[in-house]
Amino acid sequence: MPGQVQSITRAAAILRLLASSSGRLGIGEIARSLDLAKGTAHGIVRTLQDVGFVEQDKTSGKYQLGAALLHLGTSYLDVNELRSRSINWADPLAARSGEAVRIGTLLDGKVLVVHHVFRPDDTLQTLDVGSLLPPHATALGKVLLAYDVGAANAVMQGEPEPYTRRTLVTARTLSRALTEIRDNGWGAEIEEMTLGKAGIAAPIRGYGGLVVGAIGLSGPVDRVCDAQRHPRPALVAYVRDAARAVSRDLGAARW
Amino acid sequence: MPGQVQSITRAAAILRLLASSSGRLGIGEIARSLDLAKGTAHGIVRTLQDVGFVEQDKTSGKYQLGAALLHLGTSYLDVNELRSRSINWADPLAARSGEAVRIGTLLDGKVLVVHHVFRPDDTLQTLDVGSLLPPHATALGKVLLAYDVGAANAVMQGEPEPYTRRTLVTARTLSRALTEIRDNGWGAEIEEMTLGKAGIAAPIRGYGGLVVGAIGLSGPVDRVCDAQRHPRPALVAYVRDAARAVSRDLGAARW
Repeated sequence: MPGQVQSITRAAAILRLLASSSGRLGIGEIARSLDLAKGTAHGIVRTLQDVGFVEQDKTSGKYQLGAALLHLGTSYLDVNELRSRSINWADPLAARSGEAVRIGTLLDGKVLVVHHVFRPDDTLQTLDVGSLLPPHATALGKVLLAYDVGAANAVMQGEPEPYTRRTLVTARTLSRALTEIRDNGWGAEIEEMTLGKAGIAAPIRGYGGLVVGAIGLSGPVDRVCDAQRHPRPALVAYVRDAARAVSRDLGAARW
Repeated sequence: MPGQVQSITRAAAILRLLASSSGRLGIGEIARSLDLAKGTAHGIVRTLQDVGFVEQDKTSGKYQLGAALLHLGTSYLDVNELRSRSINWADPLAARSGEAVRIGTLLDGKVLVVHHVFRPDDTLQTLDVGSLLPPHATALGKVLLAYDVGAANAVMQGEPEPYTRRTLVTARTLSRALTEIRDNGWGAEIEEMTLGKAGIAAPIRGYGGLVVGAIGLSGPVDRVCDAQRHPRPALVAYVRDAARAVSRDLGAARW
């Protein structure tokens, strides 16, 4: 088994740095952030520029992510089986529930949105595909953590950000919530990320029964929940039906 | 000036190969396609897998693009100034014209769609962001080629694909069309890509007046064109207005 190719891991680290910095960085900033010699950073960045993964801003001379990455990213979506199998079930779920639907999978301990169906009305909505959502404060994320011990432990050992006063930020409350999700086979989030908003999600299983993603809906609390602030049973059933249908299409055995 | 880092250019070639193969490839196929030793290909692919740029399919053992690329791709969109400056003008253009609007830029001689506003009606439409369109058969592409001699020459020296019998496939007809676009400051495409469809586009200029992208609309021929099959002047004016507005926001001098 060959080892890692150092220049590629460094190149990936530079791309991640540019993605997280939400702007442009100079060679000095890149080299300092990743503890690289300036010449080393320059060689890698120049190669990344040659292959279109990085672009240099003409006025400032600083570097930013390049256009070739956008095409690779959408090519990933084209071959992504979770997404292709989900699309047929996400539209009906949005239509039946009247709410926005998203499909997510874990990436570096966060929820990567691979598909997003807008709420079927005329309101202005922003496409979340490609976004990373916090795992501890979303229904999708809690469902994914419930079936990934490693990711759950990493979140609990970190310092989960409190988005509202209902966000689960302690290992005890989060761990209890994940157990409950495993017991029920679905999970919910009520004003844990945004005041007035709630979500319901269920796990999607792939070949062999492994959880490979989650599908969920989200919307205003008064539509997603009943008068007792419990997720409406009809919506829970819709979400679980959709999750089961996608799992079946992905080749998961009956469970 | 440091040279290229070979392992990074090879890694990029593998990612492009996976993107263009629209599926999964084994190490043998990757090594053969890129003329690499199998051990070399394996080392690079394994490193790409460690950084999340490549995923291995559990059942077949083959490799495909990884989820981390999706996030990098959408992060590119977040920092892409052409896109961020265009968004405010693309929505009004779609509303005024009643047609779908796309913003594109050249990537490897093709049109990379960086923004797409659906036609404002209820028909089912697929988001084209991240797609690559043929440069010689789209209004966006011809406008971009008109201001990029190198890309135009490359297309004319290749064998442009004939999508319909109206597609411009010879260097002579294409070169004449590009001259006309430069003279007029806008371009059109009438059934050159798809029967019954037409498009109008105009160049977007950035700092210093350089053409950095194009904005255009597309729709059914009978809506985009008049009875003489000429692009409707009102629509041409809307597109040129939008292109000028984006250029102004990007800091292009008056032109």
